[in-house]
Parts: sequence; C-alpha cells; structure tokens
Amino acid sequence: MTLRAQLDALPIPILQAPMVGASSFEMALAVSKAGGMGHLAGGAMAPEAIESAVAAMRARTDAPFGVNLLMAPRAQPDAAEVDRALARLAPWYAELGELLPAHPNEFAPDFESQLAAVVRAAPPVVSFTFGILTADQIDALHDAGTQVVGTATSVAEARAWAEVGADGICAQGFEAGGHRGHFLAEIEASLVGTMALTTLIGAAVDLPVIAAGGIMDGRGVAAALALGASAVQMGTAFLLADQASVSAPWRRSIQSVGDEPTRLTRAFTGRFARGIDNRFMRDLRAVETEVPAYPVQNRLTQALRAAASKADNPDMVSLWAGQGVGLARPGEAGDMIQAWWREAQEASAALQARVSR
Amino acid sequence: MTLRAQLDALPIPILQAPMVGASSFEMALAVSKAGGMGHLAGGAMAPEAIESAVAAMRARTDAPFGVNLLMAPRAQPDAAEVDRALARLAPWYAELGELLPAHPNEFAPDFESQLAAVVRAAPPVVSFTFGILTADQIDALHDAGTQVVGTATSVAEARAWAEVGADGICAQGFEAGGHRGHFLAEIEASLVGTMALTTLIGAAVDLPVIAAGGIMDGRGVAAALALGASAVQMGTAFLLADQASVSAPWRRSIQSVGDEPTRLTRAFTGRFARGIDNRFMRDLRAVETEVPAYPVQNRLTQALRAAASKADNPDMVSLWAGQGVGLARPGEAGDMIQAWWREAQEASAALQARVSR
Repeated sequence: MTLRAQLDALPIPILQAPMVGASSFEMALAVSKAGGMGHLAGGAMAPEAIESAVAAMRARTDAPFGVNLLMAPRAQPDAAEVDRALARLAPWYAELGELLPAHPNEFAPDFESQLAAVVRAAPPVVSFTFGILTADQIDALHDAGTQVVGTATSVAEARAWAEVGADGICAQGFEAGGHRGHFLAEIEASLVGTMALTTLIGAAVDLPVIAAGGIMDGRGVAAALALGASAVQMGTAFLLADQASVSAPWRRSIQSVGDEPTRLTRAFTGRFARGIDNRFMRDLRAVETEVPAYPVQNRLTQALRAAASKADNPDMVSLWAGQGVGLARPGEAGDMIQAWWREAQEASAALQARVSR
Repeated sequence: MTLRAQLDALPIPILQAPMVGASSFEMALAVSKAGGMGHLAGGAMAPEAIESAVAAMRARTDAPFGVNLLMAPRAQPDAAEVDRALARLAPWYAELGELLPAHPNEFAPDFESQLAAVVRAAPPVVSFTFGILTADQIDALHDAGTQVVGTATSVAEARAWAEVGADGICAQGFEAGGHRGHFLAEIEASLVGTMALTTLIGAAVDLPVIAAGGIMDGRGVAAALALGASAVQMGTAFLLADQASVSAPWRRSIQSVGDEPTRLTRAFTGRFARGIDNRFMRDLRAVETEVPAYPVQNRLTQALRAAASKADNPDMVSLWAGQGVGLARPGEAGDMIQAWWREAQEASAALQARVSR
C-alpha cells in the first residue's frame, strides 16, 4: 500500500508531531487508537529504546503509527569552541546554582545506529528531519516495509526528497513550533508560510503532502485538506494534552501567552527553532548566530534547561511553540483529534454551502 | 448592510489586492464585474485622481469595489540623511547613466488630503495599510456610507482596528508580496503565516476577516474560507493578468522565478516588503536597516526603478511578489477569478467527500 493510500485510509488524517520533550508514548498511542497517526519521538532515544517502543506500540494497537528521527550531524567541536560556549552559559548556570557541565563526550545519539534500529523495528512510517537520506538508506527501509516521509521547508527540499525516493513530504511551514527542518539553504530561504508551502510542494512533486505549521483546530485541518494535503501534522495543538510531557513552566507559559507572536531562536540549541520569547532568548539574541551549531549547543544547554524546569523557572526553558499557540487547549489527545475532526466536518459543510450558492 | 453581509453577498469572495504599480483601473473593474471585489490603488494617487477613479468605477459597474490608501507618515528628513541615502544610491544611478535626483520637496502624497477625497467619493469599501485611523476618521467614512477595512499583520493590530471601529480586518500573512502593513511592533513580531494569522484573528475579534498571503488559486480560496475567513485578498496571483501594469523585467522575473523563495527587503523603500531577490536587494542587504524610513527611501529610488524598468534591467527594479509567485499564471483578470471559484468548488467537493467517509 502506498503512503498516499495509507493516509487516505486513516479515519482521521491527523498526524501527531513527534516533538522531542513534549510528546510521549501514551500520546502517540492515543492518537493512533483514536484514528489518527501517532509519532514516537525517536530523535532522543537510544537504538534499543526505539526498538522496544515500536514493539510496544505494535502490541497495543493495529493502527498505523510513525517514528521520527533527527538527522543530527556527527559533532566534533574543538575544545576551545566548547569552552567559549560554556563561558557564555556560565552566568545562567550560576543563577540557578548549578555547576557548569564538563565537556561532553557525546553530543547526540548516533544517527546511523538509530536508523539501523528503525530498519530492524520496521514501523509502518518513519519521518526524518534536519537532513536527507540516501537512496540506499530509503531502499533498506522499503525492504523492511516502512514508508518514508521527508521533512521539507522549501520546494527545493521537497524535490530533493522525491529524488531519493521518499514516499511523502511533511511540508513544515513558517508557523511551525520547535526546530526548523531546513537542510539545503540558510534559514532565510527556508521560511515559507504553510498556505504557500503546501500549495507549492503539492504542485512540484507527485507525492502526498502532510501539511504542518499553524494548524490548531478542525478548521485548520479542513483548510489544509482543501489545499490538497493528504493529511496534517499538528504539534503545538497537543502541547496542553493530558499526555504531553511538557514541564510546568512551559505549560504555564503556553496558558498565559497572550497575543505576542513566537520567535525563532538559535540560542538554545544551535539550530533555529520557534518558541515563546523569554529572557534567555532575548539576552542571547545578539550572539545567537555565534553559538556552536546543533547538536553541540543543544547538549551544552540541556542541564540548564532541565534545572530551570525543575526550579519552575521559565526564563531558561526552551518554550517551543508554533504561531498558533494562543489557541492550544487542554484535553485527552484521542478526544482532541476526534473533536478536531468534527470541527473539520462542520467547516467543510459551511464551505460547501458558501461555494454552492 | 454590514461588511460581513456585503462580503457574504459577493458572488465570488475574492478581493483583488490594490498593489500600487502592479494593478490598474481595468483590473479592478474586471474583478468587480466578474463577481469579486476590485481595489483601486489609491496610495499613489492625487486626491482628485481618487475622486475621478471612484466616479469612473461607479459609472461602469453597480458591483461593489474598494479603494486602498497607504498611511505614509509625513516625512521631514534632514538634508544630511537624504545626502547619505543619495550617496549610497549614486553608483546605481550611474550604472544606468541616470543623473542622481535632487532633494525632493515631497516624499509621498498627503494622506489627510487623500482621506478627505475618499470621504467625498464615498466608495463602498476603503482599506488602509501602514497605520491606523482614529475613531473620528472612521466615523466620517461611516457617515459617507463607506465600510472600513484595516490591514493587520498580528493579533494586536487586529484588536487595535476593532477598537477604533473598523468593519473588517485584512489579515496580511507572512507569505504576502509587496509591503508589510505592520504598524505596532517591529518587523520580527509582525510576521505570522496566513494559516495561523487567519485563525488567530478570527478568534480574537468579532469582525469579518479577509485572508491574504500565499493564496494562489481556488484551493487557497477554499482553504481560507474553511479557516473562517469571509473572503480572500489575492495579489501575486494577478501579477501576470492581462490588466496588470507590471513592467517587462518584473513580468519576466515572475515567469522564470524557479523554486527560490522570495525575500523581505527594506532596501528599496525603507519599509520591509517581499519580492524576488535581485542584485540591488543582495548588495544592500547589509545596510538595508540604515536607509531612511519609508516614504523617504521609496521616493529616492523611484527614478532608479523607473529607469531600470525602461532599460529592461531587473537588477534595480522592485520585483514585488509573494511566496506563491511560482504559481502565477497569465489570463484575463475577470476570467481568472471565475476559474479560481470553480477550482474552489471542486476543492470543496473533494474535501466534503473526504470528511464524510
């Protein structure tokens, strides 16, 4: 079965975005069981953990689900660069009464090992962010029976994924929260609004498009499907779900966000990501292009963010969220997608009435 | 009749964006006659020209139409600032064999006089960009029988327009071509994708929303209506229309645009605007925040851009276009909106089939 057929067969064409640090196994399971497609955030998981999570999903549901991997480059920063980055972070660690971390030996899980684990586990779908696979890697996934989704922030990236044999494209619009998935051009050439990006990618490649970014409710789902998307991927809309693993200060920041749009920042991780503005982002804005590239800076701020979360201090937590965050609502993840689908049906009926006059 | 009722009564809820320098009287007339709502680009017109254009529209059609004004601040730059700006432009004028212009006496048409002309002419609708009216100014327009649309790039701007009594909001998403309409916050806080912005503004204010940015065809129209918009405003999609007043190098750049996303630039006019990247934008990128604010820089580059257009040289022409420009197609403006409406009907039927399973 093609990915397009698989998405068309979903009772509810809503994919839950993987969201390292915000989603959970329970969230992915609830979404798949309710008729959507849950995603395990494999990016931060050890290979064995990926295999056991996939096995656990299989044991709990016959519904399709996905795994997402982050294609972090292998980082080998020199000691001086790490020293400079740690020196910049020292006052922040000190403010929390935390010791500055030692030089890490590893900066991110090894992607090749994670990929091998996914091939062995053979989940129905796997999506990739921050880079692009080779045709051989995609062949191995296909041989295992796994459909491959590539994340694209531009038409050029969608074409590149089509070229290597991906089965579908996740079109990550400008509105999307968390990390930007660009891998071909610099950030400025990798920011296209969801409305335009979904349309442009749909016209450029003959693959099913999964629209992501700024979709917060059933109206957004209906809109993306009207644009020609085969499904949507929603992340920010799940941040207040019962099954979210969002820390207390992050959750509170979402609940009190007001009208201010979110911001892109490179300060937390060395890769541009969208979140609710806070003191760390503001204070480092002037130097954010100088911090080490992902995953180095990400690793160096991990203990800081964990300590801040524990201290219930939102100033130093990465408050990832998309532009629609003001519309995030609490609820049970499975109930949420069913409510959004009813809203999508209402929006569709209203649209049909308007265009039929 | 409220603006919402007026938009609901349109045979085709598509507004043609005003687009100084790209639209025409004939384009606005064709769109209104075909069932949409044309807009006269009043921003660059003298007060008398606005009055006569409105009278000419009235004489040619009973259908509703709009006028747009740009709320340019009154510019009184000191001579040294103008000298510096001209010095920066001197090599560009020289390259075209043009004399550097003298210090202008006026930098933009007087907004108060334009507004008075609109009150006298009393078109069905008037929209405003770059600023916000006072409640008294809106009262005067209402007394004349004119509906007022305010352009908003953020939820805060939409609330501000609702506060002073506007009848509707044009939600200008990140994708939109030409000038950004922000007037409350700096540019970074005024960039929200159309998908998110339409949803957020619809939830924040009890006014009809006109969605703009990245809408290139009937699927986009259907998507925006599904999001809850009362109508859409399309600009870039009209750039290759028979009635467009787009110069030859601009038109050629649109036809050969490829996959590269457009860029925001402040270099041409002193106000951020989106267009196809060219040499002038690239070379001035590093200093674009230093050029005088709109309308000063706009006025100082006018002769340069006119000369470049005449010389068929795209390097120094402001190639305004939105992120969907790769999908712009030629055609007669009235036929175009009717074709988009048929596409919207097809998209709606397909959506209805998907959600009804």
